Amino acid sequence: MIKAGLIGLGYWGPNLARVLHQTSRCEFTACCDLDPRRLEKITRQYPHLKAYRRPEDLLDSDVDAVLIATPISTHYEVARKALHHGKHVFVEKPLADSTARAQELVELAEVVDRKLMTGHTFVYSPPVVKVKELIDSGHLGDLHYLSFSRVNLGLYQKDVDVVWDLAVHDISILLYWLDEFPVQASSFGRSCVQQAKRDVAYLWFQFPSGPVASCEVSWLSPQKMRRTCIVGSKRMVVYDDTDPSEKVKIYDRGVILHQPETFGEFQLTYRTGDMVAPNLANTEPLLIEIEHFFNCIETGETPRTSGKFGAGVVAAIEMANHGGWQPDVALAEHGEVIVTGGKR
Amino acid sequence: MIKAGLIGLGYWGPNLARVLHQTSRCEFTACCDLDPRRLEKITRQYPHLKAYRRPEDLLDSDVDAVLIATPISTHYEVARKALHHGKHVFVEKPLADSTARAQELVELAEVVDRKLMTGHTFVYSPPVVKVKELIDSGHLGDLHYLSFSRVNLGLYQKDVDVVWDLAVHDISILLYWLDEFPVQASSFGRSCVQQAKRDVAYLWFQFPSGPVASCEVSWLSPQKMRRTCIVGSKRMVVYDDTDPSEKVKIYDRGVILHQPETFGEFQLTYRTGDMVAPNLANTEPLLIEIEHFFNCIETGETPRTSGKFGAGVVAAIEMANHGGWQPDVALAEHGEVIVTGGKR
Amino acid sequence: MIKAGLIGLGYWGPNLARVLHQTSRCEFTACCDLDPRRLEKITRQYPHLKAYRRPEDLLDSDVDAVLIATPISTHYEVARKALHHGKHVFVEKPLADSTARAQELVELAEVVDRKLMTGHTFVYSPPVVKVKELIDSGHLGDLHYLSFSRVNLGLYQKDVDVVWDLAVHDISILLYWLDEFPVQASSFGRSCVQQAKRDVAYLWFQFPSGPVASCEVSWLSPQKMRRTCIVGSKRMVVYDDTDPSEKVKIYDRGVILHQPETFGEFQLTYRTGDMVAPNLANTEPLLIEIEHFFNCIETGETPRTSGKFGAGVVAAIEMANHGGWQPDVALAEHGEVIVTGGKR
Amino acid sequence: MIKAGLIGLGYWGPNLARVLHQTSRCEFTACCDLDPRRLEKITRQYPHLKAYRRPEDLLDSDVDAVLIATPISTHYEVARKALHHGKHVFVEKPLADSTARAQELVELAEVVDRKLMTGHTFVYSPPVVKVKELIDSGHLGDLHYLSFSRVNLGLYQKDVDVVWDLAVHDISILLYWLDEFPVQASSFGRSCVQQAKRDVAYLWFQFPSGPVASCEVSWLSPQKMRRTCIVGSKRMVVYDDTDPSEKVKIYDRGVILHQPETFGEFQLTYRTGDMVAPNLANTEPLLIEIEHFFNCIETGETPRTSGKFGAGVVAAIEMANHGGWQPDVALAEHGEVIVTGGKR
Repeated sequence: MIKAGLIGLGYWGPNLARVLHQTSRCEFTACCDLDPRRLEKITRQYPHLKAYRRPEDLLDSDVDAVLIATPISTHYEVARKALHHGKHVFVEKPLADSTARAQELVELAEVVDRKLMTGHTFVYSPPVVKVKELIDSGHLGDLHYLSFSRVNLGLYQKDVDVVWDLAVHDISILLYWLDEFPVQASSFGRSCVQQAKRDVAYLWFQFPSGPVASCEVSWLSPQKMRRTCIVGSKRMVVYDDTDPSEKVKIYDRGVILHQPETFGEFQLTYRTGDMVAPNLANTEPLLIEIEHFFNCIETGETPRTSGKFGAGVVAAIEMANHGGWQPDVALAEHGEVIVTGGKR
Repeated sequence: MIKAGLIGLGYWGPNLARVLHQTSRCEFTACCDLDPRRLEKITRQYPHLKAYRRPEDLLDSDVDAVLIATPISTHYEVARKALHHGKHVFVEKPLADSTARAQELVELAEVVDRKLMTGHTFVYSPPVVKVKELIDSGHLGDLHYLSFSRVNLGLYQKDVDVVWDLAVHDISILLYWLDEFPVQASSFGRSCVQQAKRDVAYLWFQFPSGPVASCEVSWLSPQKMRRTCIVGSKRMVVYDDTDPSEKVKIYDRGVILHQPETFGEFQLTYRTGDMVAPNLANTEPLLIEIEHFFNCIETGETPRTSGKFGAGVVAAIEMANHGGWQPDVALAEHGEVIVTGGKR
Repeated sequence: MIKAGLIGLGYWGPNLARVLHQTSRCEFTACCDLDPRRLEKITRQYPHLKAYRRPEDLLDSDVDAVLIATPISTHYEVARKALHHGKHVFVEKPLADSTARAQELVELAEVVDRKLMTGHTFVYSPPVVKVKELIDSGHLGDLHYLSFSRVNLGLYQKDVDVVWDLAVHDISILLYWLDEFPVQASSFGRSCVQQAKRDVAYLWFQFPSGPVASCEVSWLSPQKMRRTCIVGSKRMVVYDDTDPSEKVKIYDRGVILHQPETFGEFQLTYRTGDMVAPNLANTEPLLIEIEHFFNCIETGETPRTSGKFGAGVVAAIEMANHGGWQPDVALAEHGEVIVTGGKR
Repeated sequence: MIKAGLIGLGYWGPNLARVLHQTSRCEFTACCDLDPRRLEKITRQYPHLKAYRRPEDLLDSDVDAVLIATPISTHYEVARKALHHGKHVFVEKPLADSTARAQELVELAEVVDRKLMTGHTFVYSPPVVKVKELIDSGHLGDLHYLSFSRVNLGLYQKDVDVVWDLAVHDISILLYWLDEFPVQASSFGRSCVQQAKRDVAYLWFQFPSGPVASCEVSWLSPQKMRRTCIVGSKRMVVYDDTDPSEKVKIYDRGVILHQPETFGEFQLTYRTGDMVAPNLANTEPLLIEIEHFFNCIETGETPRTSGKFGAGVVAAIEMANHGGWQPDVALAEHGEVIVTGGKR
């Protein structure tokens, strides 16, 4: 059985530990954090774990796979070392703090022939998978536009702004659904509370096959919103992650443009049909994600949120942040930054 | 008593007719439309009205004030004629289809010394006035940002796109609240159903005193939203015009940035207090607006949504449409495009 | 064409007048009210109407059908006179202020061979008709129970309590859906603001085929609710009349009772499927109702909310008010108090 | 420090274990369950615990206090033994399966001079405490009525019906708020899925100081509701436990009855003011409850949800189930069945 180690026991690490302990797809044997109190706490909970303070020491142990939940600025360094040690690597989102570094990790993983996966958990959640099915099956028709709102009061991250913290979720969902990379992007925001750290931002994306997308993210909003509207030529969907029972609503609605006869004006009519909220599985996305990682190691399959996928998310963020940045040559040569299935 | 005539009996005109009939502030004596069926219908309802097919004929009559609810592309021409005839003029929003024409009307009204007012009805609605009071009184603190969503399925306008149809509401509210003109603006949208007519769009504004604003407008959305979030340093407000009973919610919430002692990191804490939904008057904005018009004619007062105000709204739309357009010299010379009270 | 007259121009009468004017199924020729100001107002709006102050004078005129929207305590007297004058009669709900009087009207209408219909408008509304279809088609399975909430702040009626004002709606819907008369009923309430006039009440009904029902009605509630939950063995429905877009939601949910094998406990499992909110027609129930009245006069068909149906509603209210009152012999002899179609 | 033991590790027991482990107000030393797998699981989690299969053995140990989370039918027997062993006793709600047995436990606890407390956790939750303050301070005026809805799909209990499972919560809240015992009660329900076990029920209560109350409970409802409406003469409150952020809403609304002058009708006017959703503490009710138990042991204070309080809840359920049952002599002699503070 695959032996797995966990590096980073801060905010998110304990969730990974719980799932690594829960699954039968790996043997969870080691953990690592600079802070001895965190190590003490986790080994009290999982007494069989070997505890390390330095990542290098864990990497020198016999684990086959490493999961990295350290601060974002350290992702690149820790993942690089882990790959050099011949480990399969799972990195929490975002894969790295720049496209260049993310891309370097992708290339390194290919060279050392190890799995590199990014922890974009939402891509494994039942409502997001359901919308993907609706898009891919043609149920929604051609996609017109997508509008994301992810706002709430807090939680401020120490090392990144709200785009790197919250928009990264929406962009991963967007790239998973559309399976293509934006040709143009832009962003707009403001640092309200702290200097030079945006706590509210808006991002725009233009996709090659037509659709446009907007993401609104904020740490400074009185009401929590986790709302995405997906508008297709045949049907429209609202995915609201705060709704306890009906997260996905499919509206059989649209506008029909009638060709004018001989001469005269175009006529528009509205079509309104039933709304359906499909029943969704009640499975934990994090568990599905982690088991998918170990599955891919065993079968050789490319993870749905591979390193390349994660690099694409980082590239899209940088593109929006730089307001129209085009994917550079290195990325273009790979020609398939965003591969989320067999499509491209 | 002021004699009033109404030009344009299409979609909106009958609402103006109803209110002109209802108020005791004017004598509603004449109406005008190219379509004789519309004239027949309105005179059946208000038998005392004189009916004209040509605007010129109504303008030659003894009315003191004219209300214009014709298609947007004709606003300029009809309003110009009305001012030349020495009438006080109320023009439905937007004032004109370009800043230059709107500005020309503003100057003409000054030359002929007649009132020019734009029909931005929302500016007279109780929730919008309540938020204005909260901002002006300092109750919200410094404004961080404002986020508007005005989306629904339909109603497509024949001669304009969704920005000129829907965003014009949000921009009028925004300029009324902030009482200043944006220094930068941008927009992004897509023509999904018809060619070269955006049915979904996003607009961004940067205001000189700090706040940023975003407007999302769509004719192609499965759920109706009329939601505005106003975030200040002391309090936050959600104004939801679709809520039947609690349109304005004031949240006593915020983030406090603690200065680090001697050295160390900045600390953030969240403040969460009560939420208050103030009771709002149940008055009809359109009636208040129309009576305000006749009041201003009688007292000489400048209307809250004066011609200048309306020209500012048109200028802000053009600024966003051109993605960063700066107010030109002519506008700057007037130096007070947006006067919504005694402030400037 | 049928000539129709309207008696009673208080709160509800003007709505009937508007619809009588709008439909092409009758000639609306006469109206009547004790208050000359109401008569003046209505004849200004509909100048062709003959106006009467005394019901007798209207009944002496050549109208074929009379619609009665007077205070409840006068329904019996006015309807009786109208039937004696050989008019077809539409009486606003409730048909009369006692079962005995309602029953007398039913019998009288049979004797004089005229249509008697009760104005239970909700029975003609698209969501109520949709739920009826779901029940009758077996889509919901066997009905377990129904729970109604109809509460808001005001509007107090002068001559009746909240049961006669609000519960009458729910009971008409209930009898229409179930098509049978309760075998047992009870009620419980309180007069909070005025003496001896309940402003909050709860009613319980037991139906012969199994289902039970509860109605909560209140004039003294901070939030408006118009919510009905219909629970069947196969599916469950929530009908929320305050929801602007999804008034009917059909839940494919239930509990399955598994027979124990050999010995042991019963096992229960929960079934959760999709939720569907069917698209509903956007027709005005009042217009449908009024046109149904004139249709029935012409075709001889029995109205869906016939006099007998209306007498059943009154009997069910009295049954609940008296806490277990059983339908008396006279009613039982007719054997078909609740006829809502061709079923019985 | 008080040594505490836990009997019963089924559905609810593990929650008590977690809190007993978390608090510093006791030493959690022993646990007991008939099922060895449950014992093994809990001792893996809390290795310092002594594990017993027989309650008697735990009671023979040196624990000072015992918490009982066994099936309802065993509460009486286990609690009785624990009191005879001189332990302080906390019993999960309901205290016993009959008023007589509950009352016997109350008397026994007095005889052996040990604390007896019932686990009515909601009484310690911030929204319920907030409403209690609003009532006691007179902020709501005189209470007119209270309306509870506690419905959802599942969770069926094995040994009791929906009244003993769900209504027990509402009744505990009701008795805590009103601080008096009903003079009359009634209930109505149906066994839909299983025989002789109600899965939907309605309860009515009449309180001596005036207010009436209704409780709707169901295991067979498509939407989850946890809604309570409290209507007073000055203000009205909606307490919705499913609302993630605004569980308590206080409406400054009411109806004013104007005395008629000399002669004429009573006039009613409606008063509508602001709505306030007070900020509520984010504390865990279960922890507060358990720490209150140990506090009471140390200080001698009577628990807010004492044995007497718990016996009152059981008596109110029986009263409703028997449809008007009056508290018997034994209960009346104590004269203070419902003591929820220092008031009586």
